[in-house]
Amino acid sequence: MNQKINLVVHEMEKRGIDHLIVSDPSSIEYLIDYRNQPGERMYVLLLTVDGQHTLFLNNLFYLDKDLDLNIVWYGDTDDCVDILAKHLQSANCIGIDKFWPAKFLLPLMEQTNGESCFELGSICVDYIRMKKDEHEQELMREASRLNDLAIDQVIQLCAQGDLTEREVSDQVARIHQSLGCTGNSFNPIVGYGKNGADNHHDGDDTKLQPGDSIVIDMGGIYQGYCSDMTRTVFYKEVSQKQKDVYYLVKKAQEAAEAMIKPGVRLCDIDKTARDIIAEGGYVAEFNHRLGHFIGRDVHEYGDVSANFDMPVEEGMIFSIEPGVYIQGEFGVRIEDLVLVTKDGCEVLNHYTKDLLVIG
Amino acid sequence: MNQKINLVVHEMEKRGIDHLIVSDPSSIEYLIDYRNQPGERMYVLLLTVDGQHTLFLNNLFYLDKDLDLNIVWYGDTDDCVDILAKHLQSANCIGIDKFWPAKFLLPLMEQTNGESCFELGSICVDYIRMKKDEHEQELMREASRLNDLAIDQVIQLCAQGDLTEREVSDQVARIHQSLGCTGNSFNPIVGYGKNGADNHHDGDDTKLQPGDSIVIDMGGIYQGYCSDMTRTVFYKEVSQKQKDVYYLVKKAQEAAEAMIKPGVRLCDIDKTARDIIAEGGYVAEFNHRLGHFIGRDVHEYGDVSANFDMPVEEGMIFSIEPGVYIQGEFGVRIEDLVLVTKDGCEVLNHYTKDLLVIG
Repeated sequence: MNQKINLVVHEMEKRGIDHLIVSDPSSIEYLIDYRNQPGERMYVLLLTVDGQHTLFLNNLFYLDKDLDLNIVWYGDTDDCVDILAKHLQSANCIGIDKFWPAKFLLPLMEQTNGESCFELGSICVDYIRMKKDEHEQELMREASRLNDLAIDQVIQLCAQGDLTEREVSDQVARIHQSLGCTGNSFNPIVGYGKNGADNHHDGDDTKLQPGDSIVIDMGGIYQGYCSDMTRTVFYKEVSQKQKDVYYLVKKAQEAAEAMIKPGVRLCDIDKTARDIIAEGGYVAEFNHRLGHFIGRDVHEYGDVSANFDMPVEEGMIFSIEPGVYIQGEFGVRIEDLVLVTKDGCEVLNHYTKDLLVIG
Repeated sequence: MNQKINLVVHEMEKRGIDHLIVSDPSSIEYLIDYRNQPGERMYVLLLTVDGQHTLFLNNLFYLDKDLDLNIVWYGDTDDCVDILAKHLQSANCIGIDKFWPAKFLLPLMEQTNGESCFELGSICVDYIRMKKDEHEQELMREASRLNDLAIDQVIQLCAQGDLTEREVSDQVARIHQSLGCTGNSFNPIVGYGKNGADNHHDGDDTKLQPGDSIVIDMGGIYQGYCSDMTRTVFYKEVSQKQKDVYYLVKKAQEAAEAMIKPGVRLCDIDKTARDIIAEGGYVAEFNHRLGHFIGRDVHEYGDVSANFDMPVEEGMIFSIEPGVYIQGEFGVRIEDLVLVTKDGCEVLNHYTKDLLVIG
């Protein structure tokens, strides 16, 4: 615990932030090993460069252990922002959690009345969270091993041919649980045919037709850590166009994975995959970043995209998930999680990427 | 659709807000009947008093109908805040959604460089959402009718005596689905014995012991609208202290419901229940607001608490849920939803509040 907070404080010093408001429950759990679901109530861990760390808790939150921190309790009828502001009177530059909602931030800015500067500060925590320690790596490895087993069961369900998208996706949580996960890390996506061209399709009553692509994007939570993978398979038959797109996406996905090692920039990994897909004739059809970081949350800070020129470092874990989506026809996406190692990367998913025609 | 937006624009005018950033997906769905799950990506409906309403969409969001609005598309590598800022150049006072995260708000404030004022503006939407129209009332009534049926099944599961908290709570979604709901409106709370004194207890492996109270707080989603109710029952036996607390909470709950009619202030409803519980000797043991508004979201804007002196109006729907929590011993909470009518209120839950000893 203290080691992680010390790393964060070091980041704060480097960036000139003297007070940091951490409100993301995952970040707070990461730092002090205390889990809370605050709902709409204010929940803040205030870190300061002089070591006066304070946790602000509504008195209906349940605290069952000693956290070795200052605790400030407030109630539903207290002005919680005012209470927090009293701890910021000496602040010069206040770092704000990227998720902190306007309902707290705007009143706090009004109370300090221009005497402090406010800037996004969660990078101080996020940068530490990007690099997983050995224990976290082991949990992420196991989470993905279980996801490989789970997706095989899901593909077998699809192969029956008579289940709707929703009937398949409704089974995913149970499959994860049967393998030792607590549940899904996100609502699974099961998209048949043209629904696979909608990246965030909600499974509906669509049934399979021969020649449909099936995009399956799913993940579980194992001991608090998330898996996330995508495979695309075909039902009964596959057209030449589908084959061409499939092998193009696979080539891009594998080329991106092959170049990952410490020092390579995230934007260059994205560019490698994107260029391959563009050479195949698809530009607008690959309409999202190549990947995202993952850990306690299924989407953590950090993109594999043109926006991030950060070089990758050992211990980082992120997804590599190129796709081509042809509206009204079909979609293909292939996604693994990768862990950056000393001199390359370890792909955490091992389920086949061969073209599968099922049913 | 236009009628609801017109009501919001009228609120904006009353409050001197010329541009309103709506980002809560529930509020956007309420206003334009389009549902989206934006995840971490920017999703904004910008309303203006001159009627230039614009929806900002990431190009991987799926839009399958004509919304009769300006649509601005952006991609993962675009500076979405900059794109939004270009539509705010003439803004004087910008209202901000209470949930809008700092990662968008702080950069936007920096871009406008002090030329616009920013204030919390979601009250313009929330105030309209507080009052349910007849169609919404009908859905809320049906959602609570189904929740009454569902809690009866859950109480019967508990009466078996051999299921852990988690085994019971894991069944609640299935029960809701079997009754025609899409699932839970929140993670159900099933707390045995002293766990019932933790208001947000996560069901664990605890098993029932004779003399345990059982706090069951649950709700489902019916056609997009949420139910939410709590009952407390006792397993095999009940002590005099438990009985006294139960009847005290019930008295407070029913007294609060009895006084509800248009014009009565939310804070006074809270005070009535709180005073009764205080007269019974419990003050710190009732450590939360008396209730919350509810509709598309299980917790919507508006508290039944000392903080809200707003008089209630016909069509409002909120919970009345006093509780007494005796740490290390047991908890009691009783919760109904109520709908304010022309001259009183309609209690939407009908499941008995008699003291039940089960098993």
